[in-house]
Amino acid sequence: MPSTICVRTLLSPNFMPAVQAEIITIGDEILYGQITNTNTQWISAELDKLGIKVQRQTTIGDTPQAITSALDEVAQRVQLVIMTGGLGPTKDDLTKKTLGDFFGSEMAINPQALAEVTALMANRGRELNELNRLQAMQPVKAQHLTNYLGTAPGLWFEERGVVWVSLPGVPYEMKDLMTRTVLPRLQAHFRTEIIMHRVVRTVGIPESDLAKRIEGWEDALPAHIGLAYLPSYGQVRLRLTATGASAEQLSQDIDAEVARLLLIIGEYVYGYDSTELEAAINQLLKDHHLTLAAAESFTGGAFASAITSVPGSSSQFLGGLVAYNNSVKTGVLGVPQGTIDQYGSVSEETALAMASQVRLLLGSDIGVSSTGVAGPATPADEAPVGTVYFGFADERGSHAIKVQLHTDREVNIKLGANTLLNFLRKQLLRRQA
Amino acid sequence: MPSTICVRTLLSPNFMPAVQAEIITIGDEILYGQITNTNTQWISAELDKLGIKVQRQTTIGDTPQAITSALDEVAQRVQLVIMTGGLGPTKDDLTKKTLGDFFGSEMAINPQALAEVTALMANRGRELNELNRLQAMQPVKAQHLTNYLGTAPGLWFEERGVVWVSLPGVPYEMKDLMTRTVLPRLQAHFRTEIIMHRVVRTVGIPESDLAKRIEGWEDALPAHIGLAYLPSYGQVRLRLTATGASAEQLSQDIDAEVARLLLIIGEYVYGYDSTELEAAINQLLKDHHLTLAAAESFTGGAFASAITSVPGSSSQFLGGLVAYNNSVKTGVLGVPQGTIDQYGSVSEETALAMASQVRLLLGSDIGVSSTGVAGPATPADEAPVGTVYFGFADERGSHAIKVQLHTDREVNIKLGANTLLNFLRKQLLRRQA
Repeated sequence: MPSTICVRTLLSPNFMPAVQAEIITIGDEILYGQITNTNTQWISAELDKLGIKVQRQTTIGDTPQAITSALDEVAQRVQLVIMTGGLGPTKDDLTKKTLGDFFGSEMAINPQALAEVTALMANRGRELNELNRLQAMQPVKAQHLTNYLGTAPGLWFEERGVVWVSLPGVPYEMKDLMTRTVLPRLQAHFRTEIIMHRVVRTVGIPESDLAKRIEGWEDALPAHIGLAYLPSYGQVRLRLTATGASAEQLSQDIDAEVARLLLIIGEYVYGYDSTELEAAINQLLKDHHLTLAAAESFTGGAFASAITSVPGSSSQFLGGLVAYNNSVKTGVLGVPQGTIDQYGSVSEETALAMASQVRLLLGSDIGVSSTGVAGPATPADEAPVGTVYFGFADERGSHAIKVQLHTDREVNIKLGANTLLNFLRKQLLRRQA
Repeated sequence: MPSTICVRTLLSPNFMPAVQAEIITIGDEILYGQITNTNTQWISAELDKLGIKVQRQTTIGDTPQAITSALDEVAQRVQLVIMTGGLGPTKDDLTKKTLGDFFGSEMAINPQALAEVTALMANRGRELNELNRLQAMQPVKAQHLTNYLGTAPGLWFEERGVVWVSLPGVPYEMKDLMTRTVLPRLQAHFRTEIIMHRVVRTVGIPESDLAKRIEGWEDALPAHIGLAYLPSYGQVRLRLTATGASAEQLSQDIDAEVARLLLIIGEYVYGYDSTELEAAINQLLKDHHLTLAAAESFTGGAFASAITSVPGSSSQFLGGLVAYNNSVKTGVLGVPQGTIDQYGSVSEETALAMASQVRLLLGSDIGVSSTGVAGPATPADEAPVGTVYFGFADERGSHAIKVQLHTDREVNIKLGANTLLNFLRKQLLRRQA
C-alpha cells in the first residue's frame, strides 16, 4: 500500500477547528507577469502540512493603498495572514510603514534588528549605510523575527484576533525564516484537526471517462473524505483528502477507499503521491533488470528527455535514436527501405521495425518507437495531423498501437511522450503477468 | 529591422484611461500548494502587452461561497475579470452554475457547445456520455467561446459594467482560447492608448552583466519607453514598451532605441519578439541549406526535443543519437574506445568525437554533442556535478567548449540545451563571417 504524504499528531484533545489562512504577495513584477510567484505555492504546501487551510491567495501592487485595502478585507475572514515581499532595502518597499499605520503603531529602531544588520554588514566587510539603518526601523507592536540569510527581518503581529506574519520576498530568505521560526511558532500557536492526503495517479483514461467509471465509489465516499481531479496531458491525478481527530483512523479510512478504487480502475494507476510516470517506469525496468532503448520520430526526443529526467535512469536507459529523417530510419536504424516504400514511414509496420531495430542496434532488452504526424499540416503529410503509431519490442516479439491525437504540435508531442510511456508500462506489466 | 508584435490603432480620439483588471484562479489544488499556478503569470503578461493593468491576482477554492464572495468584491474595483479553472467535466467543477446564479441567469444546453463536444468525442472515436452533455449547459446570459483543444468552452459575460471571462484551467486549452479569441476581443472592446512592444532576445550573457553593459543606454531612454528584463535558463529577453498617441512615431522611437542597443550587445541578440532560440537556429540552418545531427549524453534528448518543437524542422534536423550509455557512444556512434579509456566519457576529446561521428553516421553537414554530469552526485562520477562539454563538427573540423553549470539536474538539463543551442548558433555565424 502507498504511504501517506502528510500525518500530523494531535497536540491536544481540545483541538480547534481548521485554522483559516490567507497569503498576500506584494510586488508589481508579479502582477505584470514578469516573474513567477513560487513563494505562494511553497507556503501553501507548508501550511497544508500543518493542517492550516489556505482559503485565498492574493497578489497586489507595491502601494500603501493596495496593501491597506487588502489587509482590511482579510482581517474579516481568517485567523492567519502571511505576507511576502515589500521588506527589502529599496525605495519601493513600503510594507513595514504601512503595517505600522494599519495597526496604529509607532515606528522605532529595533535594537536587535540593528545589531543583526550591523553584524551582517561587518561580516560582508561593508559599512552600515543609512538604508541598512532604516531596515532596523520597525512598528513597535511587531515581534522581530531574525533573518539569518539577509538584511530584512520578518515581523510577527498579534492584532485584532489575527496572527500577521510579514516576510521578505527573496525565496531562500523567506523559506529559511519560515522553516526555522514561523512554522514552529504557528504549530505552537494553533491546534488543529488532522488532515491527510493521498494522490492516486492514473494514465490512459480521460477525465470524463474516469469520473463516470468511479461515480458510484465517489458518491459513497464518507463525508470526511474529499476528492479532487487534477488532469494534465493524458494523466489524471485523484487526490483524496481526509479530515478528522485520529491519524490512525484516517489512514485506515483512506487505505480502505483506495483499495475499493483500485478494484475499479487499478489498470490505469501507475503510482501514488509525488511519483512521476517516468520514475514509475524507470523503477519497473530496474525491478526487472531490463534495459531500454528508444527510436523516436513523432516525439522527437521528448520520450528520451522524459526518461533521462529521472535521476539514475542511465542504468536502465541505454540511449535512443531520434530518427527524424527517413534516411536515418533506414541507413542508421536499419528499417528496411521496402517497409517504408510499401507502408509509408507513418505506419504500423515502420513503428514495429523501428522498435525491433533500436533494440538490436543498442543491445537493449526493450525497444520502443514513435512515428506519426505532429503537425502543423503540410501537403506532403502521409496521414492526418495527430496520427501516430507507437511500437514495442522485446525478446518475444513486437507490438504496435495506433493513436489519434490532436492538431497542436506542442500538445501532440507532450501527449505523445506520455502515451508512449504508458504503452511501455502496460507491456512491462504484461511481461510480469 | 524586426517587426512589432502588437500594434493597436487608435479607434477613437477619446481613448479610455488604462483598463484595470483582476485575475481569479479557482482550484483547491493551487490553494494547497500541490500544483504551480502558471496560468496567472501568463495571462498577466499577455494583458500587460495590451496595456491592461492587472491590479490584483486572487486564488480561491472550489466552493460557490468562495467564488461568489470573490466576484462580489471584484465588481467594485475593475472593468475586466479573467477567471480560470472550475470548467471541467467533473463534480468539483461548480464555476458555471455559480456564475449563472451570480448573474441571475438561467442554465440551458447551448446548441453550439453541444455540437462541439459531440464532434470532439466523435473525432476521438468515443461516445458522448452524460457528463459531456452537462458540459454544454451554460448560463443563457453567457456568450460561448469555442475551445478547440478540449471539451470545456470559455464563457464571456458583460454584466454590471464589467467584462467577465471564464476559461478552463488546463494551461494549453486556456492559452489557445486566450490567443485565438479572448485577446482579440479584449483589444476590440477596450480602447486605450497605443502601446507598442518589442522584445530583444539575448542568450549567453547573465542578467547582471547585461544590465551593467546597457546601463547608460537604459538611463537615456525617453520617458515614454519602458524596459523590462525577462530572464530564463541562460536567456534574457529585453522588452521595450512605448506608450503614446501616434503608432508611427512609437515605431520610429523603438527602432532608434533598438539600433543603439545593438551597437552595445549585438553579439548576444539572436532574435526578436516571439522568435524562440531553436526557431532562430532552424532558420539559420535553412538559410544556408545545412542539415544537422546531434549526439546527446548530458542533455539526454532535450536538445533534439527543443529543435523538433519547431514546425518544419524535419527538413534541417536529420535526427540524433541519445548516447546515454558508453556502449552506445562506442558501439553505435563509433567514438573510439581508446578516447573514452584515455580521457573519460566526460571530456573534450569525447565531445569532439561524438560531434564528428554523429555527423558522419547520419550524413549531416553539422554535428553537435553534449557530455557531462547532470546530477545528482554519485560516487562514480568522473567530474563535479554540472561539468559539461559541448562539441561542434562540420566539414572544416571540430570545436568543443567546457561549461560549469549548477547542481540541480532539471535546471542543468534545461540550461545545457540552451547553452548547446547558443554554441551552435555562434559556430553557424562564424561560418558565415
